[in-house]
Amino acid sequence: MGEYGEKRTEAISISWKPDRQSKIPLYSQIVSYFSEKISSGDWVSGQVLPSQRKLSELFEVNRSTIVEAMDELASLGMIESGFGGGTRIANDSWSLLMQDKAPDWQSYIKASGFRANVPTVQIINHLEFEEGITRMSTGELSPDLMQLDLTRKVLSSLSSRDLFMNYPDPLGMPGLRAALQAHLREIGIDAPLSCILIVSGALQALQLISMGIVQAKSTVYVESPSYLGSLNIFQSVGAKLQGVPLDASGILPWMIREPQSNGCHSLLYTIPTFQNPTGCVMPVSRRKEVLKYCKENHMPVIEDDVFRDLWLDEMPPPPIKALDQSGSVVYIGSLSKCFSPGLRLGWLVGPESVVQRLADVKMQMDYGVSVLTQQVVEELFRSGLYYTGVNTIRQQLRERRDLMMRLLEKYFGDLAEWNRPAGGFFIWVRLKNRVLSEQLFNRALKEGLLILPGSVYDMGYSSSLRLTYGYLSAEEMELGMRRLSEILRDMNRK
Amino acid sequence: MGEYGEKRTEAISISWKPDRQSKIPLYSQIVSYFSEKISSGDWVSGQVLPSQRKLSELFEVNRSTIVEAMDELASLGMIESGFGGGTRIANDSWSLLMQDKAPDWQSYIKASGFRANVPTVQIINHLEFEEGITRMSTGELSPDLMQLDLTRKVLSSLSSRDLFMNYPDPLGMPGLRAALQAHLREIGIDAPLSCILIVSGALQALQLISMGIVQAKSTVYVESPSYLGSLNIFQSVGAKLQGVPLDASGILPWMIREPQSNGCHSLLYTIPTFQNPTGCVMPVSRRKEVLKYCKENHMPVIEDDVFRDLWLDEMPPPPIKALDQSGSVVYIGSLSKCFSPGLRLGWLVGPESVVQRLADVKMQMDYGVSVLTQQVVEELFRSGLYYTGVNTIRQQLRERRDLMMRLLEKYFGDLAEWNRPAGGFFIWVRLKNRVLSEQLFNRALKEGLLILPGSVYDMGYSSSLRLTYGYLSAEEMELGMRRLSEILRDMNRK
Repeated sequence: MGEYGEKRTEAISISWKPDRQSKIPLYSQIVSYFSEKISSGDWVSGQVLPSQRKLSELFEVNRSTIVEAMDELASLGMIESGFGGGTRIANDSWSLLMQDKAPDWQSYIKASGFRANVPTVQIINHLEFEEGITRMSTGELSPDLMQLDLTRKVLSSLSSRDLFMNYPDPLGMPGLRAALQAHLREIGIDAPLSCILIVSGALQALQLISMGIVQAKSTVYVESPSYLGSLNIFQSVGAKLQGVPLDASGILPWMIREPQSNGCHSLLYTIPTFQNPTGCVMPVSRRKEVLKYCKENHMPVIEDDVFRDLWLDEMPPPPIKALDQSGSVVYIGSLSKCFSPGLRLGWLVGPESVVQRLADVKMQMDYGVSVLTQQVVEELFRSGLYYTGVNTIRQQLRERRDLMMRLLEKYFGDLAEWNRPAGGFFIWVRLKNRVLSEQLFNRALKEGLLILPGSVYDMGYSSSLRLTYGYLSAEEMELGMRRLSEILRDMNRK
Repeated sequence: MGEYGEKRTEAISISWKPDRQSKIPLYSQIVSYFSEKISSGDWVSGQVLPSQRKLSELFEVNRSTIVEAMDELASLGMIESGFGGGTRIANDSWSLLMQDKAPDWQSYIKASGFRANVPTVQIINHLEFEEGITRMSTGELSPDLMQLDLTRKVLSSLSSRDLFMNYPDPLGMPGLRAALQAHLREIGIDAPLSCILIVSGALQALQLISMGIVQAKSTVYVESPSYLGSLNIFQSVGAKLQGVPLDASGILPWMIREPQSNGCHSLLYTIPTFQNPTGCVMPVSRRKEVLKYCKENHMPVIEDDVFRDLWLDEMPPPPIKALDQSGSVVYIGSLSKCFSPGLRLGWLVGPESVVQRLADVKMQMDYGVSVLTQQVVEELFRSGLYYTGVNTIRQQLRERRDLMMRLLEKYFGDLAEWNRPAGGFFIWVRLKNRVLSEQLFNRALKEGLLILPGSVYDMGYSSSLRLTYGYLSAEEMELGMRRLSEILRDMNRK
């Protein structure tokens, strides 16, 4: 029983009547009326209600209707019996009502058009930050490969210099773009500053492309399997992904059957250098063929080149962008894979009209990339520390790759097939015996091993998985690979 | 006349014929066939074409059709007359064709759904980075108000510490979120870490909201005029903005006529503290009324509180979020207005389900905010340097505001009306004599003065403009205000 305030315990007055023509039941209308009077503050806690007989007269309804309404209001906690019999507005009725009145957030979430990440990816995104998880497939270099000393050196140098802390230019800071222009020239891309856009990594570049130049119902052709298979950004704007077969030299563009079938614009998305997840490198001849095919079909090429600097055996061929004089290629680079994912800094190079459009979209999305990060990255390139860093990373990554090759031979020789990557840090493992990698994912997760099943890329790759040699220490790699092979053997037996 | 290679000057052979059933004109089919043979490399420069008589026989068409096709091919630069009469494939025919085959980027841009910034905003975005422009309305503090020494101190401290350089947690780095949790507690918001999301500024928070919880055809209710009026993010997902009148105490929520009229979810967006552009501060009583109205209508409140720390006379009332126990409010804060726009760092506080959803959208858009920036901002808050900085900024801003008030009196006393802002750095100026601020914008721009016309916020404010006292030096302010008043006087005369 509540404690009643003393100010207003007088009976309440009512001049309202339920609507007999309405489809809403009479008792329900009465409950709504009471709720409204309470939530609006017209009726306050402690006030005494008229008797049920009186209410039935006032509302011109049967006594049973009143009983039903009062039961409902009591069960909602809005009225309660007073000391001297009678019924009163309950003490916390207002706050109860108010709490119930929060928006139905779930319905807001469901009604919006943006697709959620696929559940497996959402799980992975969260588990990667949990203790005790062995990340066997993760898409980033290990913290001990981050060149912290170099970054500290840059921070120290910036700490005694003039800094820019205002909104950046829509295309990104001119100094950084000039430094990247020089970097791009080294790999054969000659781009004016007005064709270089600074972005928060390759993912944002793809997001800007999907929002800025992709039409609903467009088709985005991708290598099958492809990184894009794990992302919903193009589908969220209503475009569809269409897988195109790969051979050892990369995507086979002439396997695209109807490049402009539905009258909509289409695009080709490719990772020609150390493809994610297969590690495949496209030779120059195939790069030329891809470019020729796309030009003939007036189809833009989105070239994702984020792994380039992690070559382990020999420098890869020049980017497709370097072969293109026609403006058909939009090129994407980033520091995330080769130097530091946390910097969240990448670049996009394309025709000026496209770069202007994507810069305008970016200005509407986040007003540009952190200028602090931009100044750090400019200094990394200008000082040459970036190149020192990737060189060190490459040396260590080579050892890790070779260890991983030995572990695969040792534990997976009879269980799977794989490639020997010439760069990047992924290995694409095809399981024998039709084992479903999604099942392996679940079994392995129970023991704290986190792998990426091929189904995340494309449902056609349900017996494949991506592994990395870029993240785990030698001991963890050995332990993880042994345990994974045991789980797999166990699954094969059943 | 071209120089011909000597390898293949033999005549070409043709077994193709145009399709007489096709709707494409015969001469056009012949042009396409030639283009295809050349671009595919089947026919190369220097090869001699059969005579026109011979071609007319081969293709079974009139001689006049051949003449028409040859004229077209010649005008495209694909064929040319040879020395000994006869016609040959031109020297640079292939590269000509290839250059023409770039995708039609403009049609890609036009076909995509994302709205371009309104032209005036695009012009402003670009002009702000040009030399010789006096930015009289810009939405950021002046470079000389940036607390560079404090940031340098933080950089220097980070340069000798352990750094995190990997992908951040989907919600943002736990250390930064904990620092912000303490900061939020100071203004009355008690939020668990799981309800705080790090974003790249308030604009990105709005972008995530528009993509993650707004349905096409939803209505977003905004103060009229409002900052959102200059942005297309909600319209780009198909929602519509609906202005709601303001009085001196802020938005009048009961003026919303049909909060759920079309059966779609709606939202209320408000800047209750130092509103952009009016500078208006909502007292506690109105904050409660807004919250009550929205709860009763199950309508979420998006509270944009980015100007809070720039109070000049007295601390503003607590955020609406601090009054809300129901989870109706999504709160947005940022460093952009009060400390440094270039850091691109803000935060969003809301119900866990909403924060999870928006974090998932953010993971699909850019994988989070630069961890370097996150670590700098964490240190700014932990060390208290942020508070030292805003305190200094406030002192200087107070002087600037008072100067601006004197300049308005001096030059605009008979030309306009304005408010005296208690915080932030904007002044909303209503011109007398129905002068169109868009015209003033154009006139002023000719003299290098950049102002923001009210029409950018809402077409109903065509005689208003936003000015700032946060950007210009005292001398520039005096000069600019004098010149602007002269232009205005001149316009009034005409």
